[in-house]
Amino acid sequence: MHRPNQAGICGGKDGAESIVVSGGYVDDEDYGTELVYTGQGGNDPATKRQIADQQLTRGNLGLARSQIDGNPVRVIRGAGGDQKYSPRLGLRYDGLFRVVDHWSDTGKDGYKIWRYRLVALESTDPPPAAPLHGTTDQQTPRTEATIQRLVRSTAVANGVKRLHGHRCQVCGIQLATPAGPYAEAAHIRALGKPHNGPDVPSNVLCLCPNHHVLFDTGAIYVDGWHRDGGGRRR
Amino acid sequence: MHRPNQAGICGGKDGAESIVVSGGYVDDEDYGTELVYTGQGGNDPATKRQIADQQLTRGNLGLARSQIDGNPVRVIRGAGGDQKYSPRLGLRYDGLFRVVDHWSDTGKDGYKIWRYRLVALESTDPPPAAPLHGTTDQQTPRTEATIQRLVRSTAVANGVKRLHGHRCQVCGIQLATPAGPYAEAAHIRALGKPHNGPDVPSNVLCLCPNHHVLFDTGAIYVDGWHRDGGGRRR
Repeated sequence: MHRPNQAGICGGKDGAESIVVSGGYVDDEDYGTELVYTGQGGNDPATKRQIADQQLTRGNLGLARSQIDGNPVRVIRGAGGDQKYSPRLGLRYDGLFRVVDHWSDTGKDGYKIWRYRLVALESTDPPPAAPLHGTTDQQTPRTEATIQRLVRSTAVANGVKRLHGHRCQVCGIQLATPAGPYAEAAHIRALGKPHNGPDVPSNVLCLCPNHHVLFDTGAIYVDGWHRDGGGRRR
Repeated sequence: MHRPNQAGICGGKDGAESIVVSGGYVDDEDYGTELVYTGQGGNDPATKRQIADQQLTRGNLGLARSQIDGNPVRVIRGAGGDQKYSPRLGLRYDGLFRVVDHWSDTGKDGYKIWRYRLVALESTDPPPAAPLHGTTDQQTPRTEATIQRLVRSTAVANGVKRLHGHRCQVCGIQLATPAGPYAEAAHIRALGKPHNGPDVPSNVLCLCPNHHVLFDTGAIYVDGWHRDGGGRRR
């Protein structure tokens, strides 16, 4: 079910298959059907503290890829994790979760970590086999249709879009649709846990969908602010 | 609560405030928490049949704008609608719905109609007042954060994206993110009710997010196939 013996993430550049949540990282947060999960690497297994920066490679890259592809990930909880949600002994398969966000941050120990927000799929039936010829990642769990990207809208966000005439603040494009101009609002610090960004105009950018994706994935960012990193300097 | 006396949609170019579902249009479909709603105009109130094409103006434009802005719409059901979900007498406020899709189609009577898919919000508390200065559409219902755009992913869709090297089939762009190339899959005929498009490679396009939005809103389309229209010729 989960192949690597030590690493918490089974996966690579084609996506992640599964993660183990077992209290090995000081920055992990477990809310039952929602997890804030720390990437792998850079920690001392004896003390569980971070002693080096994490890289966006191997399992860490895999989880990011699973988000981008909209593919769910198996979650396995082990003894040692949050008492409320973890088995008392051994490992327990807790179903499929989707990766809804990933970002880099400075962890409690002062080193760069990768963080992932995962949310339990409502249906956790066993994933069907991948039906398409020519795919190379047949071990990746599949569901028939998973949500890949949510764009949220608030009154403030819509006000910012109107203020900018629905033009992208990066490239200036204004998408013209039969229902009028279209743009997306990106919160520089995301709303909700764990970022708790404020829903105020100064925290909102007006972007075209392409630059919104690039912003959400960290390909572009506001100087001095990583998308969700709470103020990490570059 | 709902202002126009005859029209089923209260709204205009800034969005729709509310709709009345009362069996006035032969193409309406009511599934309780989900509606396929027909736009206004072109029908004979006496027979309820369509006698002319509908236009993407007034309330019809408003519902499309509400989808694009992610703003919910009040749904009022009246006697005369589907017996299972409608009041026996008068009008009943049934809460907030979000517009998740709109498309043009040929209705049962052979004329062009606009159709909207609406899904009930889980929370149907009364909407808060609009908090932002300078907005002109203060009558539009607001919720703090509503889902605006869902991008779904299937094994077939991900296979098509790999096949195209994550390059947009319209503009050729390949978005480079730290987690690898990004593209979105667009089903030419959408999955699920009411389109029931097949989840096969020939029904899937690989698009950048910008062209995906333009495709979903009908700004661009595949010759001979409107996005969801089931084969309407242009």
